[in-house]
Amino acid sequence: MAKHDPDLSLLFHALADPTRRAILSHLAVGPAAVSDLAEPTGLRLPTVMRHLSVLEEAGLIATSKNGRVRTCAIRPEAMEPARTWMDRQKAIWEARLDRLDAFVMNAMKEQDK
Amino acid sequence: MAKHDPDLSLLFHALADPTRRAILSHLAVGPAAVSDLAEPTGLRLPTVMRHLSVLEEAGLIATSKNGRVRTCAIRPEAMEPARTWMDRQKAIWEARLDRLDAFVMNAMKEQDK
Repeated sequence: MAKHDPDLSLLFHALADPTRRAILSHLAVGPAAVSDLAEPTGLRLPTVMRHLSVLEEAGLIATSKNGRVRTCAIRPEAMEPARTWMDRQKAIWEARLDRLDAFVMNAMKEQDK
Repeated sequence: MAKHDPDLSLLFHALADPTRRAILSHLAVGPAAVSDLAEPTGLRLPTVMRHLSVLEEAGLIATSKNGRVRTCAIRPEAMEPARTWMDRQKAIWEARLDRLDAFVMNAMKEQDK
């Protein structure tokens, strides 16, 4: 049940930080080394590594090591549960508006009789 | 610029908690009094009030007081910036995949010559 979905909480938490969103935007155009991701943030490497851990824990990125270089790649499909959750909320909300519309239309018809 | 968008951070932070998501799902079907929202959560009222403050600060709900009853209503349009941000990431990612496809197709054509 979405109410207790821990993955959804991890996902939204990962997206709730501007540095982590900037890292994801960077990775959307292609995989990058940790040092290349750190440079535009102006943050120290350990801080960037902590942000990368949060993104990896949420499943939003995957990392691999080749010699001394750690490369990060985006996993865009990981964002889908967040989108699905928002779509469901929107559908429930719109169904409610449709019912309200129908109620008002009926009330107006009754008044015209 | 999305990188430093504080509203987007507030929004994703508000959605990163299962109780807050449950409250939004409850409100999607219609406005509700704070006490009605608190009941299914099993949480104490001050805790629920703190969750409602986070949702209100993110613009996801609006509250109004009528006598001693505080009523909450969802503001579904407030979720749009989050959806827009995710759509943009997806578009960048898909453009990259299209370029990769084109590159592979060209390479195969060159090989066939």
